[in-house]
Amino acid sequence: MKIALDAMGGDYAPQNPIAGAIQALRDFPDVEIIFVGDESKVRAELAKHATADIQSRYSCLHASQVVDMSDSGLDSVRRKKDSSVSRAVDLVKSGDADAVVSAGHTGALVAASTIKLRTLPGIERAALGVLIPADSGVFLLIDGGANIDPSPRHIVGFAVMGAVYYKAIVGTPEARVGLLNIGTEPGKGTDFCRECHQLLSEAPVNFAGNVEGHGIFKKPVEVVVCDGFTGNIFLKTVEGLAKSMVSWIKEEIQKNPLRMLGALLSQGAFKAVKKRTSTDEYGGTPLLGVNGICIKAHGNSSALALRNAIRAARMAVELQINNRIVEAMKPLHEKLPSRHPASV
Amino acid sequence: MKIALDAMGGDYAPQNPIAGAIQALRDFPDVEIIFVGDESKVRAELAKHATADIQSRYSCLHASQVVDMSDSGLDSVRRKKDSSVSRAVDLVKSGDADAVVSAGHTGALVAASTIKLRTLPGIERAALGVLIPADSGVFLLIDGGANIDPSPRHIVGFAVMGAVYYKAIVGTPEARVGLLNIGTEPGKGTDFCRECHQLLSEAPVNFAGNVEGHGIFKKPVEVVVCDGFTGNIFLKTVEGLAKSMVSWIKEEIQKNPLRMLGALLSQGAFKAVKKRTSTDEYGGTPLLGVNGICIKAHGNSSALALRNAIRAARMAVELQINNRIVEAMKPLHEKLPSRHPASV
Repeated sequence: MKIALDAMGGDYAPQNPIAGAIQALRDFPDVEIIFVGDESKVRAELAKHATADIQSRYSCLHASQVVDMSDSGLDSVRRKKDSSVSRAVDLVKSGDADAVVSAGHTGALVAASTIKLRTLPGIERAALGVLIPADSGVFLLIDGGANIDPSPRHIVGFAVMGAVYYKAIVGTPEARVGLLNIGTEPGKGTDFCRECHQLLSEAPVNFAGNVEGHGIFKKPVEVVVCDGFTGNIFLKTVEGLAKSMVSWIKEEIQKNPLRMLGALLSQGAFKAVKKRTSTDEYGGTPLLGVNGICIKAHGNSSALALRNAIRAARMAVELQINNRIVEAMKPLHEKLPSRHPASV
Repeated sequence: MKIALDAMGGDYAPQNPIAGAIQALRDFPDVEIIFVGDESKVRAELAKHATADIQSRYSCLHASQVVDMSDSGLDSVRRKKDSSVSRAVDLVKSGDADAVVSAGHTGALVAASTIKLRTLPGIERAALGVLIPADSGVFLLIDGGANIDPSPRHIVGFAVMGAVYYKAIVGTPEARVGLLNIGTEPGKGTDFCRECHQLLSEAPVNFAGNVEGHGIFKKPVEVVVCDGFTGNIFLKTVEGLAKSMVSWIKEEIQKNPLRMLGALLSQGAFKAVKKRTSTDEYGGTPLLGVNGICIKAHGNSSALALRNAIRAARMAVELQINNRIVEAMKPLHEKLPSRHPASV
């Protein structure tokens, strides 16, 4: 299986993408990596590692441009045709790679994938499905930020795709879907929320109604749907608060030596929680709905996070996620004829 | 100073409102409380406490109805005219109380206050301003859920009110305002966000641009503005995650005796963080913009949280928050003529 890796994407590129890919090549013998980016930089970084054992399973594709954080996603596709992310997506389009992985600009990856690969039959909009730790196991939030202004109809597609992905990846037979809202009663929220609630009630998903932020970590549902604006605010808030809480505890502990001794004895517990809440462990968010496997890694991904993003790509290919999504969308189509011919 | 307390509002009413009010009466000798609710229940609850020392500073006003969580906010005002929350707001309207405090149905308190007290001159919409712990001190999120679908123009009012409240309560000379968004660049987010950004840039506030959830707890700004839907999602997410993280740490600690010993030695640090993140400490969220002082306490408020909500009401009265808001709105009005005559 061939995975195209955007070697220039992310805050610590090309170091971390390359270190993560080398780890993935060692851990997953069926994986081949195509490093896409500035070839001299990629080769120089690769030279820092001993790669004799895996050398036959990677190659490089030169791309002269990099998308900056100041670029707009859509513009980057039009104006930087030779960017590492665009070229990596091209490899999936041409069939030279089975999946693309990037820790770069989210908007650029979403735009390049949506424009070049197009959406799956029956899907109008792609969405980011993000695994989040809960009191037991994980839940999937979709959309994490691919579409900030979707229609209620798109939300139904997100629900179907999220449930398919969750069931396949986590290996559960069923996945309940909840709508992120500001109250549990069906009439709560904006007009958009009420319309989503209505459509989800009629959709071929196990819809459990509205869910709220303060109950969500108890995992009342396996899949939480919302628009990409709300989802992105949710994700970043969770990330920010988790980090701050850890730093507040550290700060309090350092106030006295007895607390410091106690913390030393109980440090295993903190490490476990830190690991549990670390984005590195889940590293790799699928852009569900595009006609190809596309995995976004966090911008500040460590080598481990990148390795895990490659693992996520590998699993999505193996589990044939996209075929499952197309199948799951069929009953919806029979009920809800699409507004425009499905793009293939 | 007289404070009307909705004695029937909240998950633990009338016990907690009454216990909290008794504490407040002892701590703040200038406060008088009017308990509004089912008089026999209120009297029975009061009888459980020794109140000889404060008896002269409280009274009861009978109200035969209670707003349930299943009632809609607006309907509750129309249909339950003799509800404890409506009657408590009436006391502010008639001048018989200086402020109202309720831990009941948020929508009912917002609707009753907005309809009965109306908004301050120059203010079109009221908003909930919620203090949230940050790496150092607190920041204020506004709107926490009073208006789920405001206009960008309303957001500017929220920014002005939030800055006034923050400066008065925390005692700082200046308060930077940030717009909660999914990216820091001015063009980020929905059309609504972009319009808010534009209006805030021109408004008489110290606007610092967009802020994101993962940076917000570092307190880049003192006031964070957003629509009430996003704000409510944010608040509940913070609440849910903070609780879950504490329970995850506990769970990991209980896995081995050494960790348990360590936790015992360092428990002071946890208690400090728990206190820091506890809604009880901040208990009391002002509904800013109504022509009267109106404080919402959390539904599951403890007696301490209710006592602190009464403290917040007392401070808002003393600091003449509403006069300050009206003053602060004047330059905005000169720039941005109101769409309809200000309601007084």
